[in-house]
Amino acid sequence: MARAPVLTPQAEDFPRWYQDVVAKAELADNGPVRGTQMIRPWGYAIWERMQSELDRRIKSTGAQNVGFPLFIPMDFLAREAEHVEGFSPELAVVTHGGGKRLEEPVAIRPTSETLFGHYMAKWIQGYRDLPMLLNQWCNVVRWELRTRLFLRSSEFLWQEGHTAHASRSEASEFALRIHRDVYADFMIDVLACPVQLGIKTESERFAGAMNSLTCEGMMRDGKALQMATSHELGQNFARAFDVTFTDAEGQVQDVWTTSWGSSTRMVGGLIMTHGDDAGLRLPPAIAPLQVVVLVVKDDPGVGEAAAVLERRLHDSGLRVTVDDRYDLSFGRRSVDWELKGVPVRVEVGPRDLARDEVTVVRRDDGSKAAVGVPGAAAQVSELLGTVQQALLAEATTFLDQHLVDVTTIEEAREACLTGFARMPWTTLGSDGERELLADAISVRCLQTEDGDVPSDTDAPDLLAVVGRAY
Amino acid sequence: MARAPVLTPQAEDFPRWYQDVVAKAELADNGPVRGTQMIRPWGYAIWERMQSELDRRIKSTGAQNVGFPLFIPMDFLAREAEHVEGFSPELAVVTHGGGKRLEEPVAIRPTSETLFGHYMAKWIQGYRDLPMLLNQWCNVVRWELRTRLFLRSSEFLWQEGHTAHASRSEASEFALRIHRDVYADFMIDVLACPVQLGIKTESERFAGAMNSLTCEGMMRDGKALQMATSHELGQNFARAFDVTFTDAEGQVQDVWTTSWGSSTRMVGGLIMTHGDDAGLRLPPAIAPLQVVVLVVKDDPGVGEAAAVLERRLHDSGLRVTVDDRYDLSFGRRSVDWELKGVPVRVEVGPRDLARDEVTVVRRDDGSKAAVGVPGAAAQVSELLGTVQQALLAEATTFLDQHLVDVTTIEEAREACLTGFARMPWTTLGSDGERELLADAISVRCLQTEDGDVPSDTDAPDLLAVVGRAY
Repeated sequence: MARAPVLTPQAEDFPRWYQDVVAKAELADNGPVRGTQMIRPWGYAIWERMQSELDRRIKSTGAQNVGFPLFIPMDFLAREAEHVEGFSPELAVVTHGGGKRLEEPVAIRPTSETLFGHYMAKWIQGYRDLPMLLNQWCNVVRWELRTRLFLRSSEFLWQEGHTAHASRSEASEFALRIHRDVYADFMIDVLACPVQLGIKTESERFAGAMNSLTCEGMMRDGKALQMATSHELGQNFARAFDVTFTDAEGQVQDVWTTSWGSSTRMVGGLIMTHGDDAGLRLPPAIAPLQVVVLVVKDDPGVGEAAAVLERRLHDSGLRVTVDDRYDLSFGRRSVDWELKGVPVRVEVGPRDLARDEVTVVRRDDGSKAAVGVPGAAAQVSELLGTVQQALLAEATTFLDQHLVDVTTIEEAREACLTGFARMPWTTLGSDGERELLADAISVRCLQTEDGDVPSDTDAPDLLAVVGRAY
Repeated sequence: MARAPVLTPQAEDFPRWYQDVVAKAELADNGPVRGTQMIRPWGYAIWERMQSELDRRIKSTGAQNVGFPLFIPMDFLAREAEHVEGFSPELAVVTHGGGKRLEEPVAIRPTSETLFGHYMAKWIQGYRDLPMLLNQWCNVVRWELRTRLFLRSSEFLWQEGHTAHASRSEASEFALRIHRDVYADFMIDVLACPVQLGIKTESERFAGAMNSLTCEGMMRDGKALQMATSHELGQNFARAFDVTFTDAEGQVQDVWTTSWGSSTRMVGGLIMTHGDDAGLRLPPAIAPLQVVVLVVKDDPGVGEAAAVLERRLHDSGLRVTVDDRYDLSFGRRSVDWELKGVPVRVEVGPRDLARDEVTVVRRDDGSKAAVGVPGAAAQVSELLGTVQQALLAEATTFLDQHLVDVTTIEEAREACLTGFARMPWTTLGSDGERELLADAISVRCLQTEDGDVPSDTDAPDLLAVVGRAY
């Protein structure tokens, strides 16, 4: 199928392709203050579906949402920095409020870690108050110089979970539960992104964490994107904020905490996992619109037939719209919906209708089929499941083809020109890790031999997945 | 029914009662930076339900959500202030980012009006791009000195809608549609708050608006709370931000805009509309939990019976939980759920179960009834509808009793000691309005004689509803 070259081809310039898609599919735009972003309706609708799918999973773990403030006293952050080596977010600082200079400047949250610590100290008294499982959907700010829409911006939207537990094992299990049942499940089942699961090495770990669990996606340029992380924080944050509890025996103990987050970055990951030279390709489970009924031309009865079909698709529980913008050419409208990545297009035209048929077009592989009008809704419904599986299968094949098992650092370096390399962690080691880092190749995660999540970095027979990363 | 005096009685000190409820029902707490708030899980769950109910209504008007940035260039606000007399929000200003002094300080959004203006100018070219119907859920900051949880805080959560239209009449119709089909419908049907609908006088109008439509609630101390507003902005903002479109005849015209907002303030309104001396009373349509199944004591079979009932209630589509915290006394747990305002409590105890019964307790009027176990789920389901209606009826009666028709300013002043007064706008006039303002009594809205929304302040036979306000 011949297409107008609306986008820079991926093979020609992947970053440029990404920029083009974000602009042409009307996902986002740069904000007027450097490093900020305006998420446009189509991009925001994708984010809303991500939120809703993740939120349901988060709530099913028993966690509850809260709304904590944007402003954090500077001394909260100083206190955290004292306890947590390596913690130094790039802060935005408010010095004036209501026309006056503030006596104490306040920071804009780079994360709400310190607020959760402060309030957990207040709200947790005894073991009955544990576990305390909290989550927040909010904006955070980290002053960035080199920014890219969705992937890295000074302000971004995210969810940050913070939990407190009575024992290390409980905290550890909870962090793993979030990693598997919330993040991995969502990314694989909804986003159709076959993420690599594992833990971070000591040097890649979140500052202050004892263990960081990560979901690493592979983009279509072979680079890695960290899609979400879940951390066991031990008692580090508890000590920094005096979060203690009285146990059943009357002893005062520090709690064990976890934190875990995912952000609008996932929108970038979704684009780069599935997008092609014609634009976005959205898995039906995340697509704000799953089907567009495209009226070919304004002939008698065509608009009505399209409206009837839309109603049936809607009643089958699908997210659907009709495009009858007759003032735009059919070709222009088709290209628009391809750019936006709507999984299935149903073309309704006078010739097809004369045979009581419509044409169903899949966005993922471009295939077309004539389908009888009476069974169209049921067939489209079924097709969406097929498309969802096909996108996951395609991304999994891509990953498999671009993840090479190697035994030397030299081979790893070679493999990382086009994808990931996987090698024994004992062979690589911290020295090898440092060596690769000089070439901007990092250990994305450590896994067990069967690709599962190890309990810690000292577990035997670990494999290191290495690659270049966003 | 004797209750422990956990709260200051309303009659004794209403503001203190409000503070007590917010703390004891675990709705919110003060943030560490003055004027900020921490919305706790129960308070946030109420807000989430408000968001979801409003969002559905907003989307059904065709509006789409976006995510605009927190930071606004100072010159955007200066540009707005030049065009819009009376516009002077109390700004929080960021002067440092990433450890350096910024070349240009940036403001934290007090509203996103200017950003919407800026981007609409970019995104709107021709009449085909109109109407552009956008909405945003976000946090905004207005530096406040005297703050009160939910009612007035330096940072709050809200939704702000901004739309652009091709004609004044379209913009005007849309503002009215939001006022009626989104705000009033939500407040009456979901919050059970019998809001007074009308328009603002010229002096109470939003800066820059041609017409402001308002929903005014009456709190149980007789004071008014502005629950949401919808504004026709004419072409004022379009001119400030050069938002023009080419019409079908090829002429370039300024667009006509609207804006409309509602915030976490509504949580305060909900508390003060329905709360009593035992705590919150939540209408079932907004309650995060509609039913609590309270296990009286840990006797054989009781926990199991409660679990079965919970499952049945859940399967009937209700939001329900079981409270089997046997380590807390039954009385303490009952008081807790009363404080939190859960509409219906089902007490499951051994004596009742022996008769195959449970006790169903209404939070709104405290009435109890023995109900057979087999039909309990169906009866509770039906009862929730009854409670929803009863709370609306009670608040409506309260409003009717505290809204007095008067003919003189002196009578109005007298009536406003305990509620609202309503009098002919021609009798009151701008002079009377100013006179009342000296006693902190303001015109809450202007209505037609049948309580409907007038088109403008010059319409004949208008009535002014006046009162003290939050």
